[in-house]
Amino acid sequence: MQDKDFLMIPGPTPVPESVLLALAKHPIGHRSKEFSKIFSSVNEKLKAVAKTQNDVFIYTASGTGAMEAAISNTINAGDKVLSLVIGVFGQRFADIAKLYGADLEIIKAEMGKAIDPKDLEAKLAADTERKIKAVTLTHSETSTGTANNLKALIPLIKEHGALVMVDAVTSLGCMELNTDELGIDVLVSGSQKGFMVPPGLSFIFVSDKAMAAKAVCKQPGYYFCWNQAKKALADNTTPWTPNVSLVIALNVALDMMMAEGIDQITARHKRLRDILRTGIKALNLKLLTEDETASAAITAIYPPKNIAVAAIRAAFKNDWNIVVANGQKELLDKIFRMGHLGFVSERDILTGLTALEAVLIKLGHKCDAGAAIKAYQEILKESELCPA
Amino acid sequence: MQDKDFLMIPGPTPVPESVLLALAKHPIGHRSKEFSKIFSSVNEKLKAVAKTQNDVFIYTASGTGAMEAAISNTINAGDKVLSLVIGVFGQRFADIAKLYGADLEIIKAEMGKAIDPKDLEAKLAADTERKIKAVTLTHSETSTGTANNLKALIPLIKEHGALVMVDAVTSLGCMELNTDELGIDVLVSGSQKGFMVPPGLSFIFVSDKAMAAKAVCKQPGYYFCWNQAKKALADNTTPWTPNVSLVIALNVALDMMMAEGIDQITARHKRLRDILRTGIKALNLKLLTEDETASAAITAIYPPKNIAVAAIRAAFKNDWNIVVANGQKELLDKIFRMGHLGFVSERDILTGLTALEAVLIKLGHKCDAGAAIKAYQEILKESELCPA
Repeated sequence: MQDKDFLMIPGPTPVPESVLLALAKHPIGHRSKEFSKIFSSVNEKLKAVAKTQNDVFIYTASGTGAMEAAISNTINAGDKVLSLVIGVFGQRFADIAKLYGADLEIIKAEMGKAIDPKDLEAKLAADTERKIKAVTLTHSETSTGTANNLKALIPLIKEHGALVMVDAVTSLGCMELNTDELGIDVLVSGSQKGFMVPPGLSFIFVSDKAMAAKAVCKQPGYYFCWNQAKKALADNTTPWTPNVSLVIALNVALDMMMAEGIDQITARHKRLRDILRTGIKALNLKLLTEDETASAAITAIYPPKNIAVAAIRAAFKNDWNIVVANGQKELLDKIFRMGHLGFVSERDILTGLTALEAVLIKLGHKCDAGAAIKAYQEILKESELCPA
Repeated sequence: MQDKDFLMIPGPTPVPESVLLALAKHPIGHRSKEFSKIFSSVNEKLKAVAKTQNDVFIYTASGTGAMEAAISNTINAGDKVLSLVIGVFGQRFADIAKLYGADLEIIKAEMGKAIDPKDLEAKLAADTERKIKAVTLTHSETSTGTANNLKALIPLIKEHGALVMVDAVTSLGCMELNTDELGIDVLVSGSQKGFMVPPGLSFIFVSDKAMAAKAVCKQPGYYFCWNQAKKALADNTTPWTPNVSLVIALNVALDMMMAEGIDQITARHKRLRDILRTGIKALNLKLLTEDETASAAITAIYPPKNIAVAAIRAAFKNDWNIVVANGQKELLDKIFRMGHLGFVSERDILTGLTALEAVLIKLGHKCDAGAAIKAYQEILKESELCPA
């Protein structure tokens, strides 16, 4: 059916009607008082989502642009950077640091695993001269659906003294994340994930300590320059023409988020994840990531033996108008990924599970019909909760 | 009145209803076949607008990002760059080159004037060792409404051999510009001007010669990297998540442009400019730029003596729901600017002139009521044309 596709990919994610309709309004001037007022309100709400008093700079760019900004504003050639890599996006942070001349060290986990705090502790302890200037890490790794335990990892970095740079592109607005309590110096996120807005904006939250690193940073960089952004922020604007339509749409989405409540949103994502994982297990499928390290935004699933990822994705798309993602790089055609972040309800998850079951049975996988939905009823009984 | 504002600023510009409604559609996945098909079609149409066979890379960023890309992909520290500056945006190109370590030379014209080809000729002739690697120039300078004569300037640069880098942010899709005939190596433009789409995308058209400069360029740069963009282009996609909604909206806008015809569009802009300028003169106002060097996209106007720019802009906004721009930097409060680019018809220009006349009379300026509209009738008689 035309116009019927439902995105269960890690982004873009579904967009609420009121946000779409905001996008369809005529743009206003970006140097107008009207825009400054909206921009200021968006900034305040973004800070509330990230639980921080730090400045936020909004870029008209995707998350990768903000990741580059994290490095290009703080790391000089020769500076030591430690990158914690649990997938494609953790590796991207490392690649960018390398490109800017960082003396790079990497701790890499097996795909589907999170970083073991002991490995980080050992690496930081070995840095007796405190040469590591920054540690980059991913909160929710989009390529594997694995989440790092920020509460275990970040205190180790804080004790060492390096800058803490977190890629929260698929986690912010989905998973518990208290920027200031954790002491995150640079937090990166994007519009097309938990924020329920199409791609095109990214956000970077910058601590005073990170701004101090900027002050001695010699990299060029103009479009993403924090000094330019900071100067414009004082006038409630951006240094270059922003995507005014997306900022206005984001304002609508943030109002929805404020109305639901940040803690309620993270609880909802956790619950959606648990329902999905329980259902998938009931269908005799194997998950890439253990429960303890599972992202609340994306779930990576192994196909049954003898059933190709391509066949599963095609059946989802053709029979159900549901789009699920393939694996990336080394996990290409080895897993498929279902996104459940942003504008997603329990109804959507049950729909996804129903479709998954039908797809699997059609393709010859052995499982009990109705098993996923039955498992959901068990969850309901245990939690004594009704669907929202 | 609410929702009634009409933008007569140099960007964002008015957006057609069909483009706005395209923005209000649910996003699709950026790695889907559907998106690749649209992306490929958008690329072909962008190249048709720019009259080039060169590759075009689409950035999710504003024009400044693409200007940075022009420099960061080609200019090494120490390379000699000549920047032709006729306003704020020409200076921005120079600033970016400087930031990347260029050995910068500047030819600067008086505000409101274009670059004199003789000055460029002399500067290039003095470069007997052919050390100048690139010349940056602005086609239509947004801050002054002045256009450089590309047909006079570019052949001089071609004869010298330097890379030709043109900022066509406010000219492409408005003014005659044949990239390949002129031999432009790097052409930069953006979505929110002649392309009738909200801000958020920029375009860079890159010649083989520019790609050869990239091959020996040592600047870092990740998000705007041409190698990444070129590799993704082979798969009809972008290296990082693009603003899919804007690309889809741009596709609709480009179909409108193809239907009207590029040469017809440039003729329309020229005519709109001439009607506006004739009307403004009939109202006893002085223009910043001479007719011969007037941009077809923006017109900069001196306020009458004793009437403040702020008063004119306020009356436009409050009485007429029309937004006109102030001057920038050294021209702040010295001129006001009316944009007439993109989705603008003769009806809009007459509306703008009618409002301007009323604003001026209200603020005490002496002019004949109806003079601008009368002047329009004279144009009609001469041109034997009826409004489209």
